[in-house]
Amino acid sequence: MIRIGLLGYGNLSRGVEAAIQQNDDMELVAVFSRRDPKSINVKTPGVPALSIDEAKNWVDKIDVMVLGGGSATDLPEQTPEFAKYFNVVDSFDTHARIPEHFDNVDAAAKASNHVAVISMGWDPGMFSLLRMVSSAVLPEGNNYTFWGKGVSQGHSDAIRRIKGVKDARQYTVPVDAAVDQVRSGQNPTFVTRDMHTRECFVVAEEGADLARIEEEIKTMPNYFADYNTTVHFISEEELKRDHAGLPHGGFIFRSGVTGWDKENNHIIEYSLKLDSNPEFTGSVIAAYARAVYRLAQEGQTGCKTVFDIAPAYLSKLSGAELRKTML
Amino acid sequence: MIRIGLLGYGNLSRGVEAAIQQNDDMELVAVFSRRDPKSINVKTPGVPALSIDEAKNWVDKIDVMVLGGGSATDLPEQTPEFAKYFNVVDSFDTHARIPEHFDNVDAAAKASNHVAVISMGWDPGMFSLLRMVSSAVLPEGNNYTFWGKGVSQGHSDAIRRIKGVKDARQYTVPVDAAVDQVRSGQNPTFVTRDMHTRECFVVAEEGADLARIEEEIKTMPNYFADYNTTVHFISEEELKRDHAGLPHGGFIFRSGVTGWDKENNHIIEYSLKLDSNPEFTGSVIAAYARAVYRLAQEGQTGCKTVFDIAPAYLSKLSGAELRKTML
Repeated sequence: MIRIGLLGYGNLSRGVEAAIQQNDDMELVAVFSRRDPKSINVKTPGVPALSIDEAKNWVDKIDVMVLGGGSATDLPEQTPEFAKYFNVVDSFDTHARIPEHFDNVDAAAKASNHVAVISMGWDPGMFSLLRMVSSAVLPEGNNYTFWGKGVSQGHSDAIRRIKGVKDARQYTVPVDAAVDQVRSGQNPTFVTRDMHTRECFVVAEEGADLARIEEEIKTMPNYFADYNTTVHFISEEELKRDHAGLPHGGFIFRSGVTGWDKENNHIIEYSLKLDSNPEFTGSVIAAYARAVYRLAQEGQTGCKTVFDIAPAYLSKLSGAELRKTML
Repeated sequence: MIRIGLLGYGNLSRGVEAAIQQNDDMELVAVFSRRDPKSINVKTPGVPALSIDEAKNWVDKIDVMVLGGGSATDLPEQTPEFAKYFNVVDSFDTHARIPEHFDNVDAAAKASNHVAVISMGWDPGMFSLLRMVSSAVLPEGNNYTFWGKGVSQGHSDAIRRIKGVKDARQYTVPVDAAVDQVRSGQNPTFVTRDMHTRECFVVAEEGADLARIEEEIKTMPNYFADYNTTVHFISEEELKRDHAGLPHGGFIFRSGVTGWDKENNHIIEYSLKLDSNPEFTGSVIAAYARAVYRLAQEGQTGCKTVFDIAPAYLSKLSGAELRKTML
């Protein structure tokens, strides 16, 4: 059995916990948190919630520690720190800071003979794998990434910070016409606005100035200003009833040419339709936790990404079984 | 430069040759054939066509030999034989015989310290990769594979063997309604007939009994009897004008559930739309030839499949460049 520990117990960690139930070679052994452990009810029977300070006493009882924290402040600190004591997996998703994060984690993991996998999930993660492999197979071409339709937590949070907003849910929506253009091999050039729209469901505080809130959303730099944005004011009940889930998904395309005169077109499309973003992300992380465990067993060390791990490491099946049933 | 040799100069080998033009770290150095080399005009300037018997004199001048032969009789002999002298890649696609082929090639490659990759292309190949990774990520679910719309060479050949048939082209066509059912997460159970239809364009010899030909096609066991098959008799000119290309493609789906009560559905879809089946296959093989070269440089030996190779080996870019641009 691969013994998994969880650092944090938010949406993503609970997604990993659910995935562990579906993989009979893994077990969850402990949850660690900065919160008061007494406030945490771990769903898996018999698994303790413990203070983060106790983690170091579990070095011999955990094969892989999954870090469920956020990319803004948690993971840049936690992943290098925990890689000193454990094999780790995180879902660090600030694309621009990945090189720096990789170097920090790699140094810590190599110094302590651990294996770390960073930036795992679906983007970065599965989408990265598809982008990379497809670009290697079709070296002359274009990549396109569409996200959604799905809930963006970051954009929802940004709306919640506006004065007079009680709660909000933001959906990122790919523009169908843009997807169709790519799918038909037209190799279009897009500006930001062409590819996605943003749809916001906002619960305002009583008496708030709705016109001002809508204006603040639509003109917010980086988050909304470059998009066609729709704002719907709804009641708290409607938000709870109609927008409680965390669905997401998206499309990755590689559109490329081959042939002596580059006369032939090829379209590779990979798409995800996910009822639960954190549970799918957690399922990807569980598969890569298996890979981390095996790589560590082989004596490998250092930081890896989705690019560095042979696919067979993800599966419970043996090489012979994989060749017989999946090739 | 990675020096590539080609064994055979059919559609697939010419696809590999075109792909080499698009990868500036590779060069084609020689083509070997069982045919009279004088009958072969190699498209790449300055590259010799040589008798297959001369291949062994090129052991020091070729880094990876790509075997372009067929799975029925060529590759079961050639891949183990050539793995004694070269690092090799083949596209062996008789799924049922892959385990035996793997064992034969593995023994030969290990004994002679070479790296071999078998069963590379898109199915087996890219589709296998997606099937395997998606099954590891969503362990509870179903896989679905649809092929087409595209030309099946095997089925076209089967029609050509019927008495009175001069030429033929067979298209495998996925049933749209079946694809839609899978895409919408219904997890349907299909019989063969539900998933694909077969469309045949046949040039008959003058005076041939068309009704008898049509009947022979539609009742042919394994190839057509289990499918809804349409037969169109056309002229030789029409066949040349409208059916000269070798387009293909298909869809792989993984439809799975997650969550404590398996309450959330997820659909992973990977699809290919290929203007040229042999050129896309050749492009996949070129990327894996790069991987073979690098694995051999590291001192690895033996037979590998798409499951055994970390994605980064396929790309010209360094690990740091991949993390910066693709993750």
